[in-house]
Order: sequence, then C-alpha cells, then structure tokens
Amino acid sequence: MPNPSTGREFDIISKYFKPLSQGADEALGLLDDAAVLKVPGGHQLVVTTDVVVEGVHFLSSLSPEDVAYKVVGANLSDLAAMGATPHAVFLAAQFSIGLPEDWIAAFAAGLQSALAPSGVKLLGGDTVSTPGPMAFTITALGHVRDGRALMRSGARQGDLVLATGTIGDGALGLAVLQGDIQGLSTQHHDHLAGRYARPEPRWGFAMELSKRGLVSAAVDISDGLVADLGHICQASGVTATIEAEQVLLSDAAQAVLEKYPERIQDVFTGGDDYELVFTAPETALADLEELSEILSLPLSVIGRIEPLDGACEESVQVLDTNGHPILLGSGGYRHL
Amino acid sequence: MPNPSTGREFDIISKYFKPLSQGADEALGLLDDAAVLKVPGGHQLVVTTDVVVEGVHFLSSLSPEDVAYKVVGANLSDLAAMGATPHAVFLAAQFSIGLPEDWIAAFAAGLQSALAPSGVKLLGGDTVSTPGPMAFTITALGHVRDGRALMRSGARQGDLVLATGTIGDGALGLAVLQGDIQGLSTQHHDHLAGRYARPEPRWGFAMELSKRGLVSAAVDISDGLVADLGHICQASGVTATIEAEQVLLSDAAQAVLEKYPERIQDVFTGGDDYELVFTAPETALADLEELSEILSLPLSVIGRIEPLDGACEESVQVLDTNGHPILLGSGGYRHL
Repeated sequence: MPNPSTGREFDIISKYFKPLSQGADEALGLLDDAAVLKVPGGHQLVVTTDVVVEGVHFLSSLSPEDVAYKVVGANLSDLAAMGATPHAVFLAAQFSIGLPEDWIAAFAAGLQSALAPSGVKLLGGDTVSTPGPMAFTITALGHVRDGRALMRSGARQGDLVLATGTIGDGALGLAVLQGDIQGLSTQHHDHLAGRYARPEPRWGFAMELSKRGLVSAAVDISDGLVADLGHICQASGVTATIEAEQVLLSDAAQAVLEKYPERIQDVFTGGDDYELVFTAPETALADLEELSEILSLPLSVIGRIEPLDGACEESVQVLDTNGHPILLGSGGYRHL
Repeated sequence: MPNPSTGREFDIISKYFKPLSQGADEALGLLDDAAVLKVPGGHQLVVTTDVVVEGVHFLSSLSPEDVAYKVVGANLSDLAAMGATPHAVFLAAQFSIGLPEDWIAAFAAGLQSALAPSGVKLLGGDTVSTPGPMAFTITALGHVRDGRALMRSGARQGDLVLATGTIGDGALGLAVLQGDIQGLSTQHHDHLAGRYARPEPRWGFAMELSKRGLVSAAVDISDGLVADLGHICQASGVTATIEAEQVLLSDAAQAVLEKYPERIQDVFTGGDDYELVFTAPETALADLEELSEILSLPLSVIGRIEPLDGACEESVQVLDTNGHPILLGSGGYRHL
C-alpha cells in the first residue's frame, strides 16, 4: 500500500504540527525526509521511545490535551531517568479514521503546552490513520555530558534510596478517574486526577543530579515504586529495603488511604508517578537536600541498598514500622 | 493505566529483541530507560520516524519477516534521502493481543536480516499489546558530515533529474500480491512481490552522494515518483518534466504493462519503490555515472528541472515521446 502521506495528512501536519517546530531550524520545516540535529561537543546523545495506546495506556475518556501530556511526560521522564537535558521529540501519531479534526487540534495544543516548560521542539514524525484505537509513539532525544548519564547499574550496598515528590498519586488518580474511589473532596479528587493525567517529568532535577555527580543509580517511576527500584537492584546486583512510613504521600493520597486502606498496594506497585527513585552514598545527602530546596522539589530518603541475599526471593522489600515485610501482590501490570 | 512493561513484555524483549542489540554497548542491554550514543565529531545527527499499520501500510497476509523488511526499509530509505550513514534504530512495537509468539519470533528474525547489510543495531524501544491492528514505529538515526545532508530544497533550473534502480515495481508488486495482476511468469511475479515486500533502501549510494557533493536536491520514492519529485519542486521553488520513456522499468514491470497498459499510472504515482530521485547539475553527470558503475546500481537521467511557470498548475509533468504531457490521475494515496 502506498504511504498515505499526501492530501489530508499534509494539511494536518502543516496546520497543527508545524507550529510546534517553529524556531527550530533542525526540523527543516517538517518538510524534509528527516531532521538534522547537532549534538553539543563533549556530550552523548540519549534516546528513548514510548508508545501509548488508547484503552491500554490511557483511558478513551481522557481529553486530547491530557493524552498529549501523558505521552510527552512518559518520554521526558525516561530522559530524566538518565540525567539528560531534553533536546527534541519526534511523534508518530496514529489517528483513528473519522476522528474529528477538533480532537487533533486539541491534541496538538496539548503537545505544545506539555513541551513548553522544557523548551523542546517537535522536530519531525509521521501522521497516519488507523482503523484501530489511537496510538502515539514519541521518540525523545536528549544529551548528557560524556560519561555522566545516570544508569540503573551503579547501586552499591549501603547506599541510600531516595525518591522525589509524592508517590502513588498516579495510580490513585487513575482509580479516581475510573470511579473506583468515591467521597473525596473536590480538591483531592482534582489533585489525584491531575497527577495521573498531567505528569511532571523531573528532568530539571535530574539534569542537576547528572551535573553534580551525586547519584549511583537512577530510574523513573513508571511501572511502580517497587518494580522500578527492582530494576535498579537487578541491574546493580543488589537488593533494597523500603521503610513504608518514609515514603512521602500527598494529602489527597492520605485521604484515600484513610477510607480505602487496601489502596496502599497502589502506592507501592501502581506506577504512572513519573517521579525519580535513585540511590546515592550517604555522603551525598547534604548536597541532595540542598538541591531539593533550591528546586523546591520534595526529596525523601525511603530506604537502603542491601547485599544480594540468597534467602530473599524479592529484590525489593517494603517494611512496616516494626521492620516486618509488608506483603504486596505480584504488582506490575501484565498485559501482553 | 500502569505501563504494561512487566511480565511477558520483558520476556519478549529479552528473548527476541535483545539479541538484535548485541555488540552495541550503546543499547545498555536494552535494560535502561534510554540508550546513550556518541555522534562522531564533525557530524550532524539525522533522525526520521515512520509508522506502519497493519491493513493500512502493509497487508495482513504479509509474512512477519516481510513486515520487518518493510518498516526497516521505509526508515533507512528516509536516511538515504538525506545522504546519512545509518547508525541505529529504535522500535515501538504494538503487537495485537493474542498474537502467536511464533509471529513475534519471525518478525524479530526478519528485523535482524533487514538490518544486517547496514550493520545497524536495535538500540531500544517499547513493546506493548494492542486490541487493534498491529503497528510498528521505527525511529532511525544516522549521521552526516556537517552541512552535507542532502535536502529537498536545492534543485535549480537546468539541473538534471535522476533516479536510481527501476521504478514502479513497488506498486505493481502490491497489485500482484492483491491478485489484481494475473498471468505473469513465476519469475516476474516473484520479482515484483519481492520488490514490494523487501525494499532495498539506497543508503550506500546516498552516502557517496553526500560525500562527493554531487547533488542539489534528493528525496526517496515512497509516495510515488511524481509526488516525491513534486516535494523537491515545492521545496526548491521550481517545476520538473519527466520523459516517460527514460524511466527505467524492470523486465517484470514491462511484462505487466504489455498486458495492462493502464498500469503505467502505478509506475509514476504508485510509491513504495524506495529508490532515490535527485537533481544534479549536468557537470556532475560523468561522476554520477562512474558511481553507478562502482556500486552496480542503475542510474537514469529521467528529466530536467524547469523554472516556476504561472501557467502550469502541476509542479511535475510527465511527457510522452512527442513531448506531450501524459495525464495522470490525482496520484498519491489519500487515507486520513
């Protein structure tokens, strides 16, 4: 089948997506076959790709603006996990056949707003129609000084485990939007829904972590705190303990837990927070706390890196105030 | 909804896609949040993204290997259009729920074969399941010496229009696979079907074009010869004429045209050839012909760049042996 890149696609691109590349010569006006970029000298390129599918990764009822925030957030959060400075995004948009043009216009507006804080431009992509659900793939490019990318593999026994922001809001926000959590104040409802729909990737904080070299391993929380810290443990050959009461919760999340104590599960395994969890030697703590203050982003010491222990099956244990493991379900989200 | 990146997705990645990153430290074992790459000094980065959707861009009956060849081909062909040396690809795979694992295994094997000639590695991506048709997005990265990218915008009045390889095989191959063309010899049938299913992007030839600085504008033929040359004309502010009888056809395409003369339309407007069409001053012709010989890739002078003419609505005219315009349908494929 010929590539459906004539007619309406060109109109859509020039009307809605070209404005998002304005000011970036690298995009070649979205008119060439590819974009041409320069990576600053002494820097490495950091590249990540994430796809979100309607009904799988986002609710069909989510507004077009929120969908844009979600896919941008997931990708910029992956750059943040590496300590990279965001540079550019490429969008492959699969719009469902018959989708009203209003939806596309609102999606493009959301994309522009979601990219604005980072100054990142849309440098290219592909726009196609699909008989199936909508899906959006963003490839995000960033750069990091040579050898200064944050990796998952550097955690060492004795390191502290730290997390930015409040944990669990993403998963609780999804439950709120699905109608599974009732009786919240409007303020708490909106806070959680907003945290789910419009994540704020922590690339600004992460850039400083990379620059200052304070961190031994890092990851962003997309699959859930336990699962993502588990990725660090597996890559580093260590285990970790989390002290449950040290994990920072928003007022809204606390209000949910008072009514639905079993939702503690969502806090630890729910995902979609797009906060950072990272490890650092204890000697870095004062500098990290200073950074947290400068950037007005809360930071909590939530646990510690432990040696690999043959007797312990789980790489991450969550402990209650008595130091006893809290049993969590299998966690994670199994779909494929 | 939490990111479905636990469980089966991890198994699929480690079993089928991790081998495609082997030997590339940049991929970080497909275990980190992003890949970290180095662009060679004095070079710019070239980035392109293409998505193919089952039933829209490829036939559901296409083998998994052929689907892999198609999506790799489309992307490496976009790099070729810019004269870039292919460096890496990232894959966002949307597999339909319930797709047999055999299909995924064969797709991964096809990906490996399709990437092998260029030495390009899979450096990362995303693997999700979808309730809709399958779709694959590849983002391809290449590099080109500073300022040496081939653009669409450099064609000048009097330049020759040249094309690599044989034209029309892609579209005729699709018609063959759809059963719309009957009575071909097995050899001709297989040639056209193969040209559709397993395009050979011309990045090797294009790298030399960039290195030698022989070309004023270039594009790859994905939307059809007339439409893609039209892109050069629009970007360059010129028009072009093509002499129909100078366009090189394969024996198989000639056999089709003997039986179905109206299929000449497919040759000029059909797309999916993944050959290069480019413009160059006449003084470059001897060097271009030498390059064609060295790389054993046929090259034809098929037309000429003309000034913008207010009286001529079409930016590209195809002329018969008497110099009269051949009327072609609206061409292109309008889908969205």
